[in-house]
Amino acid sequence: MKENFIINIGREFGSGGREIGQKLALLLQIPYYDRELIRIASRESGLGEEFFEKADEKRPFSLFGAVTGPKGSLTDDLFTGYYLSDETLFKIQSDIIRSLAEKKSSVFVGRCADYILKDQPGCLNVFIYAPVDARVARIAAIQNLPTGKAKALIDKTDKRRAEYYNYFTGKKWGSPASYHFCIDSSLLGVDGTADLIRSIAESKFGLPAKP
Amino acid sequence: MKENFIINIGREFGSGGREIGQKLALLLQIPYYDRELIRIASRESGLGEEFFEKADEKRPFSLFGAVTGPKGSLTDDLFTGYYLSDETLFKIQSDIIRSLAEKKSSVFVGRCADYILKDQPGCLNVFIYAPVDARVARIAAIQNLPTGKAKALIDKTDKRRAEYYNYFTGKKWGSPASYHFCIDSSLLGVDGTADLIRSIAESKFGLPAKP
Repeated sequence: MKENFIINIGREFGSGGREIGQKLALLLQIPYYDRELIRIASRESGLGEEFFEKADEKRPFSLFGAVTGPKGSLTDDLFTGYYLSDETLFKIQSDIIRSLAEKKSSVFVGRCADYILKDQPGCLNVFIYAPVDARVARIAAIQNLPTGKAKALIDKTDKRRAEYYNYFTGKKWGSPASYHFCIDSSLLGVDGTADLIRSIAESKFGLPAKP
Repeated sequence: MKENFIINIGREFGSGGREIGQKLALLLQIPYYDRELIRIASRESGLGEEFFEKADEKRPFSLFGAVTGPKGSLTDDLFTGYYLSDETLFKIQSDIIRSLAEKKSSVFVGRCADYILKDQPGCLNVFIYAPVDARVARIAAIQNLPTGKAKALIDKTDKRRAEYYNYFTGKKWGSPASYHFCIDSSLLGVDGTADLIRSIAESKFGLPAKP
């Protein structure tokens, strides 16, 4: 094979995107990265793990937010400090994603990896979604929550993901134009969707089909 | 096989969606309907063909449009007449789409068929898009137009399609949540995309895989 191929997965919360990414990585026998990536980034950069956790998929403070925030009178230095910190964390994560993608064919879930690797030719960018009822049922079951709380958690998480993605990429989270391919995971289920993405990757990257 | 299956394709202008629908119908050996549907509708309903052509994927007059239109003083009767005509045409097309879908497994391109057949269980709803540069190049080549004119035609056509779809379905044209599956046709090309949808249909509907 000539070069590495990368599958980047964006996903609505509760759509099973993470599990699909894991199954896909197993099917293709390549590494999978999502939250684990934060820990790798943490270790490689020497920065504290909880600092990364805090910055993980949260949009940086905006000028508007900083000025009208609880303190009301942040100095320019303090503002710049906060702002650059989050930008810097994104940059560190980006360097690590690029370095991992150079080493091995991989599956990345979240973290704007599609954007970070946009200059790498061998990328397949996928978005996974599902009807809200299916997502509420999934999250309620997995996290043992009443449906109202599951719905609130979904709304909050997806809002945060969209803000993070839109801020750093200049693209629109969950909009088809930002991806090669979007699929409702309730169409074929977790295994069926993973298998479909595998077959698309085989077509796109000319991989030998697995039995 | 138990019952008919239907594949409904929405598409951006210039994405090759129509050609993909035609190839898919050939692969599955089932009928394909798009503009042809208008003629069938015309013949079956006894209404004039050019009347259907006029109403084809144009949104009905809005109250706002009618009141502020060039005549400025449309009567209620005239307004209602126009309004109901387009609604009626949509209803006739809907009846025919439902009747065709009952008779045979089919591929429908456009015409809000996904919405019209929403109560039929065996539907796969797909949206096909492509980067704007690829669409401009395609339309410029097919219609022998300069790129500026091709771009203007794409914008105008997609605006009209979105208005038509959003008006009649209450869903959002081109938004993943309105479909099971959205794909950039430049990922696998016309043949590759048709073949992918065929394999998804085989999974979803339990069809015997074709060699």
